[in-house]
Amino acid sequence: MAVNLSAPRAADLLPVPGVRIGVAEAGVRKAGRKDLTVMLLEPGAAVAGVFTQNRFCAAPVQVCREHLKQGDIRALVINTGNANAGTGQDGLVRARATCIALARQLEVAPEQVLPFSTGVIMEPLPLERIEAGLPAALADAQPAHWLRAAEGIMTTDTVAKAFSATAVVGGAQVTVTGISKGAGMIRPNMATMLGFLATDARIAPGLLPALALELAEASFNRVTVDGDTSTNDSFVVIATQKAAHAPIASLDSADGRALKAAMLQVARQLAQAIVRDGEGATKFITVRVEGGRDAGECRQVAYAIAHSPLVKTAFFASDPNLGRILAAVGYAGIADLDPGRIDLFLDDVHVAVGGGRNPSYREEDGQRVMKQSEITVRVVLGRGQAADTVWTCDFSYDYVKINADYRS
Amino acid sequence: MAVNLSAPRAADLLPVPGVRIGVAEAGVRKAGRKDLTVMLLEPGAAVAGVFTQNRFCAAPVQVCREHLKQGDIRALVINTGNANAGTGQDGLVRARATCIALARQLEVAPEQVLPFSTGVIMEPLPLERIEAGLPAALADAQPAHWLRAAEGIMTTDTVAKAFSATAVVGGAQVTVTGISKGAGMIRPNMATMLGFLATDARIAPGLLPALALELAEASFNRVTVDGDTSTNDSFVVIATQKAAHAPIASLDSADGRALKAAMLQVARQLAQAIVRDGEGATKFITVRVEGGRDAGECRQVAYAIAHSPLVKTAFFASDPNLGRILAAVGYAGIADLDPGRIDLFLDDVHVAVGGGRNPSYREEDGQRVMKQSEITVRVVLGRGQAADTVWTCDFSYDYVKINADYRS
Repeated sequence: MAVNLSAPRAADLLPVPGVRIGVAEAGVRKAGRKDLTVMLLEPGAAVAGVFTQNRFCAAPVQVCREHLKQGDIRALVINTGNANAGTGQDGLVRARATCIALARQLEVAPEQVLPFSTGVIMEPLPLERIEAGLPAALADAQPAHWLRAAEGIMTTDTVAKAFSATAVVGGAQVTVTGISKGAGMIRPNMATMLGFLATDARIAPGLLPALALELAEASFNRVTVDGDTSTNDSFVVIATQKAAHAPIASLDSADGRALKAAMLQVARQLAQAIVRDGEGATKFITVRVEGGRDAGECRQVAYAIAHSPLVKTAFFASDPNLGRILAAVGYAGIADLDPGRIDLFLDDVHVAVGGGRNPSYREEDGQRVMKQSEITVRVVLGRGQAADTVWTCDFSYDYVKINADYRS
Repeated sequence: MAVNLSAPRAADLLPVPGVRIGVAEAGVRKAGRKDLTVMLLEPGAAVAGVFTQNRFCAAPVQVCREHLKQGDIRALVINTGNANAGTGQDGLVRARATCIALARQLEVAPEQVLPFSTGVIMEPLPLERIEAGLPAALADAQPAHWLRAAEGIMTTDTVAKAFSATAVVGGAQVTVTGISKGAGMIRPNMATMLGFLATDARIAPGLLPALALELAEASFNRVTVDGDTSTNDSFVVIATQKAAHAPIASLDSADGRALKAAMLQVARQLAQAIVRDGEGATKFITVRVEGGRDAGECRQVAYAIAHSPLVKTAFFASDPNLGRILAAVGYAGIADLDPGRIDLFLDDVHVAVGGGRNPSYREEDGQRVMKQSEITVRVVLGRGQAADTVWTCDFSYDYVKINADYRS
C-alpha cells in the first residue's frame, strides 16, 4: 500500500514529441508480467545520465557510461527481473549483446543504444529471452505509451510512477514527462534505481550532463528507503529538441530556469513516489535539518535519522518515542555537536528544546502527529545557517516480509 | 529466542573477592521486575570505564566520566526502565542525586559512586523511586549475586548475560566475572549498552584505562544489532586487587597477557551474547573481511554488510540471495575498490570469485549454509593483508514487533 500515491492515469501523461515507447512480455521476470521496455528517440535528441556510485556497479551501467561518451543515442532498452550485476565479464558481454540485438533491428550502431537492467543480483542475464522479446516491444512503440513503460519497469513496486509537467520557454510550450521505479535497495547515490525524464525542449546538448546532475541531487539523491545503495541506479535525462523555441544556451537564463523548474517538479514527484511506494511503507516522512554549518552535515544528520531502524519502527507504530531521534542525531558523526543547542519539532509540535524535553511538550501532541500518514521531522542544530532535506518512509513488518520473500 | 544462548546458572558464575551485589524492585520499569542493582567495592579497587561516543550521551555517562577522574570508586548503581538521556540539566541533577543518596547510606563521598541508567530516552528519571529502593538493594548485597545482577539490568533482553573465567597470574588463581545487557539500539561505539567486568587481579591502576579500551575494541566495539549507537553505552572494568600475586606492572608481561586473555574471553562472550539475544534474532552471523589495506577499511565493509536491511532479511529467510552482500561491499565507501578482485565465501562455500558468481557455485550449497543458526560471511578484498571481524544477527518480523511495541 503506497502512501498517498495512486496509479497515474494514461490521460494525465503527456507524450513528448520525439519519443516512442513499446513494452513486451519477454519472460525474464514472471509469467504474465510486462518486463521489457524500449524507448525510441528520433535523431538529434540530447541524452545525459547519472549512475550509481556503488563500486559493484552493474554491467549495463558500465555500458551506458561508455555509450553516453559517444553521444547520438537512439534507443533505450530496459529489462526487469534480472539486474545483470555481480556478473563479471560475462555480464558485460550480455549487456553489449542486448544493444547489438536492438541496434540491428533499428539499423543504428550498438553504441547508440543504452541498456538498463533491474532485479536479482548475481544471476546470468537471460539474453535469448530478451532478444526474442524485442520485436514485440518494437511493434508496440507509440508516443502515448508512458504509462505502459512505467508499468513495464516495475519490480516490487506496487504502483506505477509517472508524472508530466509543462513550461513555457521562449514563448513555446514544452513538455516534461518522466517515469521511475524502485521500492527497496533504495538509497540512491547519484540517481535512483531507474528514472527516465524526457522533454521536447531545445537545450544545448553540452548543458545536459550538469542539468541531469543538478536534478538528481535535488530529487533522487534525497530519498532513502533502507539505506542500501543499489548496483543499478540510473537516472537519464532526454531532450528531444522538438519544441518551437530558440535553443536554451544557459541554465541560468529565464528560459533555462523555467525549464529546470518544470523538470525538477517531475523529478521530485518521481523520487518521492519511490518513497511513498517504499517496501512496506505506511508513512511518508520528510526529515529537514536546519541550522548546520553546511548542507553536508545537515544531510548527514538527516540520513542518520532516516536510516535508524528504531526511528523507522517507532513511526510504523505511531509511537512518539522521540528520544530515538535525538539518539540518531547524537551518533550522526558530527564530532563537535553541542547537544545543548538542539531543538526537535514534529510538524508544528516543539518536542525538545536545548537538547532536552520541552517542558510544554505533551505526549498527546506528539501522538497526534505520529498518527498522520505525512510527517515532517525538523531538527535545528543551532550552529549555522545551512539546511537540507531527505525524504523517507517507515519500517514495517511488510518490509521484512517482502525482502524475506523476494526471490521465492 | 536467543541464538544458541541459554541463561547462565548461578553455580557457574564465580564471585570476585572484593565485590558484593544487591538487587531490588524499585518500580522504575514494570511491576514485578527487578530494576535496581548496586555493586559495592571494597576500598582499593581500581576502576576504569569506556563510554558511548554518541554526542547525546546520557546524564549518568557524563557523571561517570567526572567521578572516574577522582578515582577511589566504592559503588555502582544501575537502574533499568529509564535512560536519563535527552534530559538536559535536570537529568544531570537527578543522576548526581542518585549518587548522593547511595553515598549517604554507604558513608562515602558522592564522587565515589558511578551511576548507570538504561531504558526509554527523554523521560525524567523517577528519582524518588530509586531512592526508596536503595535500602532493599543494599540489604540484598552478597558476593554470589552476579546472576541476580545480570537479571536486574535486563530491558528487552530475553536471557541474562554473565560469564566467568579464571587465569593463573604469578602462581595465584585470579577470577574474572562479567555481566552485560542490551538487545536493541546496539552498535556500540566504545562500549556496549551496559557491560561490567570484574577481576580480583592485582594490576597497577594506571594500566586499567588502556586495558578497558583494548578489551572494548576487541569485543563490544565489534558487535552490532541495528546500527543504532545508544546514548548510554558504558563498559566498566573493575580490579579489586584482592588476589595473592605480585602486582602486574605491564600488560605485555606474561602475567599481564594471561590476565588479558581471560578478561578478553569473558568480554567477547558478553558482547556476542548481546548479538545472540539481539532483538528478534534467529541467527548469529560472523562477518569477516580480509585482504584489506588496513583494518579500518575491513571494518567499514564488514559494518556495511552487517547493517544492510536487505542482507539481514535474506539471512532471516535463509535465502542465499547473496548478490545483496556484493552490493553492500560496493557501497561501503571505499572509493578505489576493484570489484574484479573480490571473493565471497559463506562458511566453506566459495560463492563469488573475481567479483562474479563462482562457476562451480551451486545454489543448494548456499542454501545449506543459510539454514544454519551460525554463519560466517567471509569477504576477501584482494588489496592488502589486513582483516577485521564484526558479529551481528539477522533482521526478523520480531525486530519490528519489539520496537513498535517497546513503550506500550
